[in-house]
Amino acid sequence: MKVLVIGANGQIGKQLVTLIQESDSLKAKAMIRKQEQASYFEELGAETVLVDLEDDTKKIAEAAEDVDAIVFAAGSGPKTGPDKTMLIDLDGAVKSIEAAKQANVKRFVLISSYDTSREAIQEADSSFAPYVAAKHYADDWLRRTDLDYTIVHPGMLTNDEGTGKIEAAEKVEANKVPRDDIAQVLLACLEDPSTIGKEFQVIAGDTRVREAVASLK
Amino acid sequence: MKVLVIGANGQIGKQLVTLIQESDSLKAKAMIRKQEQASYFEELGAETVLVDLEDDTKKIAEAAEDVDAIVFAAGSGPKTGPDKTMLIDLDGAVKSIEAAKQANVKRFVLISSYDTSREAIQEADSSFAPYVAAKHYADDWLRRTDLDYTIVHPGMLTNDEGTGKIEAAEKVEANKVPRDDIAQVLLACLEDPSTIGKEFQVIAGDTRVREAVASLK
Repeated sequence: MKVLVIGANGQIGKQLVTLIQESDSLKAKAMIRKQEQASYFEELGAETVLVDLEDDTKKIAEAAEDVDAIVFAAGSGPKTGPDKTMLIDLDGAVKSIEAAKQANVKRFVLISSYDTSREAIQEADSSFAPYVAAKHYADDWLRRTDLDYTIVHPGMLTNDEGTGKIEAAEKVEANKVPRDDIAQVLLACLEDPSTIGKEFQVIAGDTRVREAVASLK
Repeated sequence: MKVLVIGANGQIGKQLVTLIQESDSLKAKAMIRKQEQASYFEELGAETVLVDLEDDTKKIAEAAEDVDAIVFAAGSGPKTGPDKTMLIDLDGAVKSIEAAKQANVKRFVLISSYDTSREAIQEADSSFAPYVAAKHYADDWLRRTDLDYTIVHPGMLTNDEGTGKIEAAEKVEANKVPRDDIAQVLLACLEDPSTIGKEFQVIAGDTRVREAVASLK
């Protein structure tokens, strides 16, 4: 199974491509924005494709034509300008979802934000609220498709070393989670079809990733 | 018929409240953000209600409880920060639409942007694209409701004096249009139920507003 990783050059994206390349049954196609980002992925034996998320849907669909699954790991992040929040976190995600449909790729895994509910937009402070709103509308768009989707809602992302252990459920108490472990969660979702149609929050915890993901309600 | 004008303190909003108050069958309830904005509307004999579009849906729904129609004339405008583009032009519009549903207000007239198609987002320059995207998603949200909606897509808004004459159709060539004439278009939509379920572009033209609006396909 070949997986298009959108946002491959981000921290989670890089780790995910590494894990995919180490796995037995998956291989990665890294969607990157700049040619100079390619060598990292080529050294891992992964394919690369140059597409900017501000390009049109057709260009993204072409990148997805030969893959079996898409992971949307791109994120302008809450610290980028809010113009990119609109064009990457919302519109880039929606174009990726539409590209999946156009390219007949059924499986779509989306990294969202911890809580993207209507209430969470209201409660977020003013600098974070646009990001939560972007993720709210992107999640909503994906839920309304008939793609085989999984939406992952990570707690507060850290650069701590991964432990391979998490707590995952529809609702978990807000807490931190290493980016490394989120990459493992994404891999587990790709390898476990029982995650199709599910969405869940993830924080650091005591259960091995694969087990935690397999036992999601 | 009482009309809640959301964004009443904007240029189009002020003009619309004036026209509504001058009309025979309509009266306006101006939704404003600050108490000091109230006197302008009180002098016109219009009701006012203090709600911020960053408030929650419930607060907007309360403001809409005694009205028969809502006009969304708010706009951070393409020149505000893109954080407000997300929170006002997109999320504020969606909350207003949801508030209409909650308050059982069927009639909803939305001022959109000239062209909010997927292609228009792609073609817009990078400073304008987030605004087009916000309007794209707000329009889409409204179309998917069962409200009695009308979506008005004005050409490039100017502060020129209105002529009372426009050109309106599903597609018209890009051109300017005075804000005053857009206020007249909104009034005509409120007074003409044949505009329900329609959306159209408007530029300056040679046809009287009421006639142009009545003859929309």
